[in-house]
Amino acid sequence: MSDMVIPEFTTSVDVDVERWNDAGVSSRRDVVAEEVPVALEYNGISHAVMMATPANLEDFALGFSLTEGILQDRSELFDCEIVEAIDGIQVQMRIATERFVSLKEKRRNLTGRTGCGLCGAETLQQAVRKPAAVVCNVRFSASTIYAGMAAMHKQQQLQQVTGATHAAAWLHADGSISVVREDVGRHNALDKLIGALAQKNPQHDFANGAVLITSRASYEMVQKSATMGIGFIVAVSAPTALAIRLAEQANVTLLGFVRQTGHVAYAHSQRLERAI
Amino acid sequence: MSDMVIPEFTTSVDVDVERWNDAGVSSRRDVVAEEVPVALEYNGISHAVMMATPANLEDFALGFSLTEGILQDRSELFDCEIVEAIDGIQVQMRIATERFVSLKEKRRNLTGRTGCGLCGAETLQQAVRKPAAVVCNVRFSASTIYAGMAAMHKQQQLQQVTGATHAAAWLHADGSISVVREDVGRHNALDKLIGALAQKNPQHDFANGAVLITSRASYEMVQKSATMGIGFIVAVSAPTALAIRLAEQANVTLLGFVRQTGHVAYAHSQRLERAI
Repeated sequence: MSDMVIPEFTTSVDVDVERWNDAGVSSRRDVVAEEVPVALEYNGISHAVMMATPANLEDFALGFSLTEGILQDRSELFDCEIVEAIDGIQVQMRIATERFVSLKEKRRNLTGRTGCGLCGAETLQQAVRKPAAVVCNVRFSASTIYAGMAAMHKQQQLQQVTGATHAAAWLHADGSISVVREDVGRHNALDKLIGALAQKNPQHDFANGAVLITSRASYEMVQKSATMGIGFIVAVSAPTALAIRLAEQANVTLLGFVRQTGHVAYAHSQRLERAI
Repeated sequence: MSDMVIPEFTTSVDVDVERWNDAGVSSRRDVVAEEVPVALEYNGISHAVMMATPANLEDFALGFSLTEGILQDRSELFDCEIVEAIDGIQVQMRIATERFVSLKEKRRNLTGRTGCGLCGAETLQQAVRKPAAVVCNVRFSASTIYAGMAAMHKQQQLQQVTGATHAAAWLHADGSISVVREDVGRHNALDKLIGALAQKNPQHDFANGAVLITSRASYEMVQKSATMGIGFIVAVSAPTALAIRLAEQANVTLLGFVRQTGHVAYAHSQRLERAI
């Protein structure tokens, strides 16, 4: 990408608060996570606004575009400018004409019950994309996964000061982690991670590792991961039933409630080594 | 509303899982929360799809319509049918013509950087609605709030079996709570609560009580509440900086990290009684 403009935004803010407890009320300074409306624009057309932590927005833009199937490859993003606007931040992307035409078609060919008079409205068919089954042969031991989670937690810098942000990280097949990304929204943290990986290495093999997330594993988390060919998801909290069904169908290993001494396997545990 | 059709949907599902811990791997049945794409349709036109827990969907539909400013009053919703579709659930609402025209205008008059060729695209101006300052004289003691939170937690039935859902409840000025609503999404739980309150009592005074939520207090939570004239928000987890600024501007009391022995006050603590 050329002409990348990346302004610096504040990701956490000091605020005056009152702390109330048994001892009474005390004034203090607290650090809270910033949250900003981020409008994603393709070739001059606004597509969606996401509430997000204003950091790593170029990763976010690329990741969102890939996980939502708007782009199929990093090379289709020609340019990405981050522009401060009155009410938030505009991410102005210039994408390949072919992809832009597809995006327009997708939004125009909406088949509502009575047709789409309003246009651009979301439909169930749009919401439920069915990603192809992932081809993934990576295997991890439980202890490698627990060590990866511990390593990610240590790198959650924004979470450490605000207590309000999720993180996503990449666990390589060799057990090392890289590219921890944080956001007030769990999907955004995942999109930032995926965008960062694709940006760093256009040949990044998403099938050869696992995604670690500090949140619940909801449907979109599995959908976004499977769209990228990621076959291994490790979540700190619970999955939903729909997320489990999608993981089953898409050949994605799904672990939840991952702690330092155990976890629950919800789908495709064959990629988990029995010997700890 | 007439002709209300409310099918029963499953809100939790039994699944086979493997529990891994120091003692080894054991098979067991686990209960997980269901999650379904719910398409909200107004007068035959699809507006948005939300991932939601398929319970209290008529409350959700009314609440969403009110908190997003699509309807100004419960009486403007003439009919609401919940219909099972192939990929999810359609909520088919029939609303007052005036409101439907406004909704269409809102979506057509989008002022993007280069106009809205794609149509229906979200813009920053749409995302950041500025609710009017709330007129609210309700006051609570900290002990009343803690008791309300404890009472809500006891009524989180879906959370108790799945560990994956948020809740929202109404704390009356007299300290009692009512209408606990649950959802995999925090905004949906709030919308369901607000819809249920408006449905139960068209004269419900949203300024005379507090909303209790088990989640973080993000921007939308404050925006939705302030839109309804709610002046008191009690959250289990952290607020964002943007949520605090909006609460300040909109004259909304915002408490976070609420525990049984303390909390943090982020905005307008004047409504909190000092004597515990």
